[in-house]
Amino acid sequence: MKIKTDSVKGTFDILPKDMELRNWIKNTIINAYTNNGFNQIETPSIENLDLLTKSEGGENLSLLFKILKRGGKLQKALGKENLEENELCDLGLRYDLTLPLSRFYANNSNYLPKVFKSIQVGWVWRAERPQKNRFRQFTQCDIDIIGEDTEIAEIDLITTTIEALSNLNFDNLTIKINDRRILKNIVKFIGFDDSEFMGICITLDKRDKIGWEGVRKELLNKKIEEDKINQLIDILEKLTIDDLSKYKVDDEIINSLRNVINVVNNYSDKGFNIEFDITLIRGMGYYTGQVFEIVSNDINCSLAGGGRYDEMIGRFTNRKVPAVGFSIGFERIFNLLKERNNKTPKNNEKIAILFNEKESIISVLKYAEELKEKGNIVSIFRKQKKTKRQIDQLKEQGFDSFCIYENSKNLSNIE
Amino acid sequence: MKIKTDSVKGTFDILPKDMELRNWIKNTIINAYTNNGFNQIETPSIENLDLLTKSEGGENLSLLFKILKRGGKLQKALGKENLEENELCDLGLRYDLTLPLSRFYANNSNYLPKVFKSIQVGWVWRAERPQKNRFRQFTQCDIDIIGEDTEIAEIDLITTTIEALSNLNFDNLTIKINDRRILKNIVKFIGFDDSEFMGICITLDKRDKIGWEGVRKELLNKKIEEDKINQLIDILEKLTIDDLSKYKVDDEIINSLRNVINVVNNYSDKGFNIEFDITLIRGMGYYTGQVFEIVSNDINCSLAGGGRYDEMIGRFTNRKVPAVGFSIGFERIFNLLKERNNKTPKNNEKIAILFNEKESIISVLKYAEELKEKGNIVSIFRKQKKTKRQIDQLKEQGFDSFCIYENSKNLSNIE
Repeated sequence: MKIKTDSVKGTFDILPKDMELRNWIKNTIINAYTNNGFNQIETPSIENLDLLTKSEGGENLSLLFKILKRGGKLQKALGKENLEENELCDLGLRYDLTLPLSRFYANNSNYLPKVFKSIQVGWVWRAERPQKNRFRQFTQCDIDIIGEDTEIAEIDLITTTIEALSNLNFDNLTIKINDRRILKNIVKFIGFDDSEFMGICITLDKRDKIGWEGVRKELLNKKIEEDKINQLIDILEKLTIDDLSKYKVDDEIINSLRNVINVVNNYSDKGFNIEFDITLIRGMGYYTGQVFEIVSNDINCSLAGGGRYDEMIGRFTNRKVPAVGFSIGFERIFNLLKERNNKTPKNNEKIAILFNEKESIISVLKYAEELKEKGNIVSIFRKQKKTKRQIDQLKEQGFDSFCIYENSKNLSNIE
Repeated sequence: MKIKTDSVKGTFDILPKDMELRNWIKNTIINAYTNNGFNQIETPSIENLDLLTKSEGGENLSLLFKILKRGGKLQKALGKENLEENELCDLGLRYDLTLPLSRFYANNSNYLPKVFKSIQVGWVWRAERPQKNRFRQFTQCDIDIIGEDTEIAEIDLITTTIEALSNLNFDNLTIKINDRRILKNIVKFIGFDDSEFMGICITLDKRDKIGWEGVRKELLNKKIEEDKINQLIDILEKLTIDDLSKYKVDDEIINSLRNVINVVNNYSDKGFNIEFDITLIRGMGYYTGQVFEIVSNDINCSLAGGGRYDEMIGRFTNRKVPAVGFSIGFERIFNLLKERNNKTPKNNEKIAILFNEKESIISVLKYAEELKEKGNIVSIFRKQKKTKRQIDQLKEQGFDSFCIYENSKNLSNIE
């Protein structure tokens, strides 16, 4: 019987060509990060289930892959009546890199500088319903600055991420920026009830897809007073930073936003622009201050997103530790560059030596060594009877040059 | 309440310095592989539980991390009486890279050349009892050649692995080689019962630790006839390749071994030697022919191991597909190089700009940009009051050069 050989539903095998592109993207991003003084770290893929379930992961918690207990602990759990799911499990696969980073920082802070600039690139797992471009195992690519409470951190993350995307040949991008706390002020100013705030956020988050008219309709459906809705949309539609003080937004919040926008605008000559966008919400519950996103204007989709989360690490350290993160959407960028047929830069010629079985392998290897010393990629293969087909297959594997090794040193370079 | 912040038992957090060394090792190995025409691929960390449990994983099967079913399927399973462990789970974490490679090859063979030379570097998981240098999540680093049935594949794997280890600055290494089928011939020749073969293998495998006298004692304890034991040890102790034909070993097996030994001996001027070792068994049940191992003579431990497994992929493809693999012990090599205090080569100067809060960040960033364009790694930090301490911490993070940015462009290079 033939065994099923597909990869697990929602996951994917990576073939050599895709791997090459993924490696190029990964290295390009990591180089930009490293050149700006960030340090790569890594945490295990598995975390204690307690840590995961007690986190502020929002809907990700319902998407956890949980790992069964083993041995005596499992037997004990199985013996229980009215068995609950979590009693069977002790570990889980991480669903993001931010929660593990917080645990890592608390666990290792003695070995880390006061301001720690981290790089993390790694797999995360979510038991999503599989659909196009939504995977159960995918790569996340994060930088975070821990221990810096001013907007220097935001500026550093944004300019570094611009550098990374620019090195990946992206341009015509807009950086959207907001501060979580502003909308709260405005909603309060209009006189909404606190309980209505989350619903308003969820709807506003869709503004770029449904437009202001869509926002109005959706809020009406939520049984919110029409007058107030109109007032809210009136304010938000035209809102600029200069208006913020009217709504009792703290000067500190306003100045910090101004500073980031001003610096990033002045910094960049790379075809990026930055704008204040009050409707930028971003899903994660843990954000406490500025949030930002980079959007491609050509294809109207988000390539990177992040924000400040000053409360999260404190849960592990018992003292407040400010933090900001910015994450590049690795899988989306991979798919975009693959569609664009992005060629990874090639430095070395890739040579296949096809040798006759009767030849001395020692001399074939010595010849290969000579070619390698000249900086080529060299692979030896037995010459197959269907040599033409063999060469065609090797071309698909990226070999550009072929030589047939016959009659000792008599080489015929055939391509 | 403070939450537990250790990494999961048997796993480890990777700090920046360790990450740098791990990346250097990984890149050095992958470069050696790539330069010899191998292609990197990757498979998901999770596989269907069926695939894992029906594999020839030997004792690894008892070390599986199994993943709980979700949603309706879980509820259905929980409702059953006399619930069995595997009914609760549908997925598991991979315990090695060879089984996933076999599935990968069967799943993607239409897109792969007839002879496929693969690289895999990735995490694997085993629920081992945690102990020193035995981890529950560790990196494996494999090359495999699929579709080549002659010893060209073995030679290619061995010479490529030598190149990788040599580039990692290892020397004084011995390559041990054997063929699984030879011992079977000798045991049969002496007249052992088939049922005794596995027990003999398990004992012989320990010969490098317990010596021939230890082998004798252990076999006696296994109630094997003393006469036969003596005969076996007499033969094995002095066995050379020239003796093999006496014990009715196939000429093909002997010639193939001779060829590998001869070629590798002639190829290498890198302080390696290769020798036939009848006691080299290697644990995995799936090996069908030659097996080999690279041992450091300085510290008497194995750095790499592999062998031919011609039957495994056929279980997925329904046609015989020959395959050979060679795996470098990544974690062991990392620990050895860390103990040696191996410095990773450094190309770029790492500069920290400490700036006064009152300075214009735009000009700080522009200055950082200038320094980066000269090929430096540059990071900006707010100058802390305890500047000396800040600089000491940054030195530990690998920064070699510091400048304080004050009074606009007035720079004082302080170190």
